[in-house]
Amino acid sequence: MKFQTVLILVLLFILPQYISISQKKDANASRPYEEVAKQIISEGLKSCNSYSLLKDLSLNIGPRLVGSPSAQKAVEWGMKTMKDLGFQNVRLESCMVPHWVRGQVEEGTIILTSGSELPIKICALGGSISTPEDGIIAEVLQVKSFDELKSLGEKAKGKIVFFNRPMDPTKYNTFEAYGGAVNQRSVGAIEAAKVGGVTALVRSMTLRLDDVPHTGAMHYVDTIQKIPAAAVSTIGANLLDSLLKIDPHLKVKVKLSCQTLPDVQSANVIGELVGTEMPQEIIVIGGHLDSWDKGQGAHDDGAGCAHSIEALRLIKTLGLKPKRTIRVVLFMNEEFGLNGGIAYAKRERPGEKHICAIETDAGGFIPRGFGVGGDSVKYQSLARWSYLLDPIDAGRITRGGGGADISELGKLGVTTIGLRVDTQRYFDYHHSDNDTIDKVNERELELGAIAIAIFSYVIAEEGI
Amino acid sequence: MKFQTVLILVLLFILPQYISISQKKDANASRPYEEVAKQIISEGLKSCNSYSLLKDLSLNIGPRLVGSPSAQKAVEWGMKTMKDLGFQNVRLESCMVPHWVRGQVEEGTIILTSGSELPIKICALGGSISTPEDGIIAEVLQVKSFDELKSLGEKAKGKIVFFNRPMDPTKYNTFEAYGGAVNQRSVGAIEAAKVGGVTALVRSMTLRLDDVPHTGAMHYVDTIQKIPAAAVSTIGANLLDSLLKIDPHLKVKVKLSCQTLPDVQSANVIGELVGTEMPQEIIVIGGHLDSWDKGQGAHDDGAGCAHSIEALRLIKTLGLKPKRTIRVVLFMNEEFGLNGGIAYAKRERPGEKHICAIETDAGGFIPRGFGVGGDSVKYQSLARWSYLLDPIDAGRITRGGGGADISELGKLGVTTIGLRVDTQRYFDYHHSDNDTIDKVNERELELGAIAIAIFSYVIAEEGI
Repeated sequence: MKFQTVLILVLLFILPQYISISQKKDANASRPYEEVAKQIISEGLKSCNSYSLLKDLSLNIGPRLVGSPSAQKAVEWGMKTMKDLGFQNVRLESCMVPHWVRGQVEEGTIILTSGSELPIKICALGGSISTPEDGIIAEVLQVKSFDELKSLGEKAKGKIVFFNRPMDPTKYNTFEAYGGAVNQRSVGAIEAAKVGGVTALVRSMTLRLDDVPHTGAMHYVDTIQKIPAAAVSTIGANLLDSLLKIDPHLKVKVKLSCQTLPDVQSANVIGELVGTEMPQEIIVIGGHLDSWDKGQGAHDDGAGCAHSIEALRLIKTLGLKPKRTIRVVLFMNEEFGLNGGIAYAKRERPGEKHICAIETDAGGFIPRGFGVGGDSVKYQSLARWSYLLDPIDAGRITRGGGGADISELGKLGVTTIGLRVDTQRYFDYHHSDNDTIDKVNERELELGAIAIAIFSYVIAEEGI
Repeated sequence: MKFQTVLILVLLFILPQYISISQKKDANASRPYEEVAKQIISEGLKSCNSYSLLKDLSLNIGPRLVGSPSAQKAVEWGMKTMKDLGFQNVRLESCMVPHWVRGQVEEGTIILTSGSELPIKICALGGSISTPEDGIIAEVLQVKSFDELKSLGEKAKGKIVFFNRPMDPTKYNTFEAYGGAVNQRSVGAIEAAKVGGVTALVRSMTLRLDDVPHTGAMHYVDTIQKIPAAAVSTIGANLLDSLLKIDPHLKVKVKLSCQTLPDVQSANVIGELVGTEMPQEIIVIGGHLDSWDKGQGAHDDGAGCAHSIEALRLIKTLGLKPKRTIRVVLFMNEEFGLNGGIAYAKRERPGEKHICAIETDAGGFIPRGFGVGGDSVKYQSLARWSYLLDPIDAGRITRGGGGADISELGKLGVTTIGLRVDTQRYFDYHHSDNDTIDKVNERELELGAIAIAIFSYVIAEEGI
């Protein structure tokens, strides 16, 4: 080996090592925004103001199904709340939304061949048609999958099709478990009708064993007969499963009085802190203002609304003046067709450029970090800020992320980001009477708002 | 530079780099125990058996203050539970423990100078003497610190000293906030008596504003007069604070009927899975079986008992045969003097060698990782397993950790390790009527057991 060769090797291998070490030292020395992040954490945890916001929304507005008078009140609440906090350009951006109503009647009954009757807790799925006034009474075909249903040929004809595939408890991420079961709810009625079923009865989307049915959106297609669709509580589902084993010809009666009314006008609610240097560059932070008509929509997604408003309040209260505009958007109708998200993305905004959109729609639980959509360059640019979130254990910036409301923005090339929170308890409450303010912990909720405040502020300063 | 010098440099710098890279590749390629960890996660989340254990302990034994008949029942419960699960060498190791009883009377009343009376929620602190039968009625001196108390000279004489320094809400880690306030509870009565105070009334150790007093241990010293000590709910503390501002000569009446009875015999409960190759090398996993007499001791520390038993059950159920012995220890009397922990550490165990002790005593919340006491070599040896815990977001292995019950083992040189869980909700429940099974989430609890199972198993296989 020549001396020169050795020298080159030394330069190639040793110098980069030294440079890398010295860079690390520099980074440790400077760590910009660390002081600001600390202030945000301190101010947030001291006030826990997000909880006051969410309590107000949960108790004084309550459930706010899209199209309902209560959803309209929620829109007014959003306007007033952001105006009272002194946000800038507080305004509505209107959109048309569907208006489905549950009605008064929701009854489920198991009728044994002996004639004995056992009530089970059911509720209409969102978008379902009603049953005839006297209900539908039919034998039950239990299936775990659409493939199984198809394989049974004519057996579904005239039957109530009972979709009873549980969420997989072995998945650590409960959204993954949800994803593996929710097609039963969303398109079960279509699949059941295809094979002659008269009603779709779907096991509630929760990992818990309890007697509370969990609603959620279902869909029809024009080419397939519409049949009613209802969720049954997991206790009801297990009971029905057990009884079918000993009395396979039992019947179930389902009575629903829901209906779809004409579309109505509603709106996204918007407020912002205008950027001092690049006001036309926008960072959206938001959740959805509509909820299901069960419970109070506290975690889904009152928490996201409270997170977003509180994040901007924290930035404003601390007297921070971000270079770019941070805009809170409370989207209307995530649950039932994304009208608000679509309307927001479609609207002409001359001169404006969206840098990114951050959605929070996974509940008010302890934050873990952010999921970042888009390419690896953008991811790297954002992942470098994790040290600002580490003091609250929320510094896990991972690839892939966003949210339903901002998905249309994503299609336009905007970087979409989702707040990642712990998922263990979410489906205990989701879309049910359990989703109430007492299930929200003040500090866990506030930490979500703090994480968004830190992340959106640093992006507003530094771009991506 | 001589050629040899350069060559040496190359050998010094480049080779280790290559070796390091190749080691990393090997580790990535193999990642031992990953499959086992997955099995443990899957089996745990499917069964959530820790919750069944904790429900049984919480509802069928309930609160189990050291020395009480209920604590004795808990000992029997621990024996039966571990025997039923087929653990090996299930046994008791006896120790003497204190026996303090709360008594029937706990009354707190604010008496305004007008004569009006307002009840406040108080409870005796553990270890306190009783008041005279008619109670103690005295004016109140409010202080935020011992320094302030000392600076007030004679003013405390004959007064009820009201320690009202809240836990600092701006601390993310609530144990840190607790650490900053708890001396008021533990030695407030000593400090108050030193300056002539007649009772110590202490703001409850919680970040929440609620009307539930939180008890906990307090101490006397022989050289200082013993005075009664009670906790007041945070709502009661705020009320008293407000009223003192407008009526500084108001009085408070405190009535307590607690007393200390003679020590009784109790025991640590032990069960194990004997190691197949090095049975004399021991990995302890444990929590404490005693609790306060408020609530059900569900999080503190029923959760730790359930974690420990379930961790060993998971290992056993999956047919794993660890080389070293994993030993569950349910310690007696963490709350009131560590008798069980001290007795365990002092006992002669010929031929045995303790590799480490893992304690879980921070509640049944979502796990974050482990804190490892001892030197950096041991830390590094354990931190390498974090990838096994990352799939459940519990891979943060940090330096510094242990637990009260295993602190005596630590003094003997045993590596002490603490399960780190999320701390936000812990003090909402701690030492109060709020600490009940309904505050525990099945999956969060089970994930703690899973983390301990994975970590203790890999240590039992690989040592430290």
